[in-house]
Amino acid sequence: MGNFADRLVGAVRQRGTPVLVGLDPRFDALPESIRRTAENGGRAAQAHAFRVFCCGVVDAVHTLVGCVKPQAAFFEELGPPGMEALAEVIVHAREKGLQVVLDGKRNDIGSTASAYANGFLGADASPWRADAITVSPYLGGDSLEPFVDVARQRGAGVFVLVKTSNPGGGMFQDLVADGRPLYRHVGAYVEQLASQTSGDCGYGAVGAVVGATYPEQLAELRAEMPHTWFLVPGYGSQGATARDVAPAFDVNGTGAIVNNSRGIIFAYARHPYAERFGQAGWQEAIEAAARDMIEELRAETPAGRLTGRGAG
Amino acid sequence: MGNFADRLVGAVRQRGTPVLVGLDPRFDALPESIRRTAENGGRAAQAHAFRVFCCGVVDAVHTLVGCVKPQAAFFEELGPPGMEALAEVIVHAREKGLQVVLDGKRNDIGSTASAYANGFLGADASPWRADAITVSPYLGGDSLEPFVDVARQRGAGVFVLVKTSNPGGGMFQDLVADGRPLYRHVGAYVEQLASQTSGDCGYGAVGAVVGATYPEQLAELRAEMPHTWFLVPGYGSQGATARDVAPAFDVNGTGAIVNNSRGIIFAYARHPYAERFGQAGWQEAIEAAARDMIEELRAETPAGRLTGRGAG
Repeated sequence: MGNFADRLVGAVRQRGTPVLVGLDPRFDALPESIRRTAENGGRAAQAHAFRVFCCGVVDAVHTLVGCVKPQAAFFEELGPPGMEALAEVIVHAREKGLQVVLDGKRNDIGSTASAYANGFLGADASPWRADAITVSPYLGGDSLEPFVDVARQRGAGVFVLVKTSNPGGGMFQDLVADGRPLYRHVGAYVEQLASQTSGDCGYGAVGAVVGATYPEQLAELRAEMPHTWFLVPGYGSQGATARDVAPAFDVNGTGAIVNNSRGIIFAYARHPYAERFGQAGWQEAIEAAARDMIEELRAETPAGRLTGRGAG
Repeated sequence: MGNFADRLVGAVRQRGTPVLVGLDPRFDALPESIRRTAENGGRAAQAHAFRVFCCGVVDAVHTLVGCVKPQAAFFEELGPPGMEALAEVIVHAREKGLQVVLDGKRNDIGSTASAYANGFLGADASPWRADAITVSPYLGGDSLEPFVDVARQRGAGVFVLVKTSNPGGGMFQDLVADGRPLYRHVGAYVEQLASQTSGDCGYGAVGAVVGATYPEQLAELRAEMPHTWFLVPGYGSQGATARDVAPAFDVNGTGAIVNNSRGIIFAYARHPYAERFGQAGWQEAIEAAARDMIEELRAETPAGRLTGRGAG
């Protein structure tokens, strides 16, 4: 168990990379061989296809990267059978030694927030078995505390949305109050929670979601939030480059995990992987795309200072 | 199908009350007879107990009130079996003619938000079959639009968090930018979405969550958001009274639904219902508590102007 940030540092150092593979299954994008088994099969068959695909992605990348991020929405879209598949994917990823961040962007107040935290956090104690979950801060500090309490008890982690990667993210997040934008108010509170939950590595069990699509704000927040591990979306499909994510790291190459979902898991459908591997080689394509992203981050960011020993 | 707000007005007028019964099952609070069947039975047995209890609540209140609000968190806390129970509760409530607002406070960006919307919204088109869902606005307008698009296509509704009922809700919601607090910025955007989706009744398919625990802000937002139906939490257990929620309504007694969860569904455990009905009469206690809340709102708010014709 132990502190989540310490486990995360360990996973990142062992693999020598901060790459986080996002598990965002979409039925129409699945490899033909998997899609075919579920066509005309209804939601249960599609959920089974999601399970087969996501476990296949995990098998392709688990020796290369230290963590994965299943996106709850795509599983929930299929109803209860999708949620069964999600649980199975999480268990499989953990059995392969990965840290699992469930991207659910949940939140609520008081005892309801506790119910989410109890349900999702703690690989040994919860039904969903995630190592960490993403949460939304709109409801304020007393909605985040129940997550922090459960995370602390169970050695789990919480990533709070601070500055999101979408084009419209600034509509409310950039509103300026008392001389600084909302996202910096949220960031300051998250940093406080992080410093109260920090492990041996100096980072806390509470982290922040900070988009790579706003590199200046990323640098600003990195300076203001020294105890806060960043989960950085926006790389690849959303337009951010390795250079854009460089400010997310500390000088040792730790302090951030960088998500890539479609760019890795659907690599078999795009240049140059499609030509090299074809649909039949979908797992090799995924592995190659993960290796390429690892190299990009090594070349352009402080993550190049990580010296991985490889998995297991 | 039709516009969600028109259906909601219909449901409220038919029953003659804006009471919304929150389905927040907690194992330790269930009636003894139900709890006993699931003790030492693990999560699947608890989920079955939730299903039996929530369907029993629906049976007790469906002729009195027009809508229910299952809280996703309590079902998710039990893992996949809990999510199966949630789906069954929603179907049962709809079969009894109720409008179902799923309290999930979901959100995400772009196509991920669409996945949540596709999964939850539209009783005839989605696996979860909810009439409406609650969503969080932190991610900005482009995260809300996919919900609005799907809601429009499917005759469903979306309630956006604006001013929440919890004590710490103001931590970020009350920050003042450009001369007004964040919640009014969010409220102004929600009102715009509501006016773009309004039905024959004048209200939109997009509504707002506005807590009864802040009656002044409730009055202020009611004036600023004439097309926006309010979902009002905070009544009862959280301390708000019938008088506090009065500003949520328009002059006809429509424009708001007022939630009560614990105060109704666990009435059998508290004075005076416990003495009158005991655990064995838990459904009668729930029915009596619902009738009492209906009367309180009739006496103290414009909801007294509704003249219900009764269910069916």
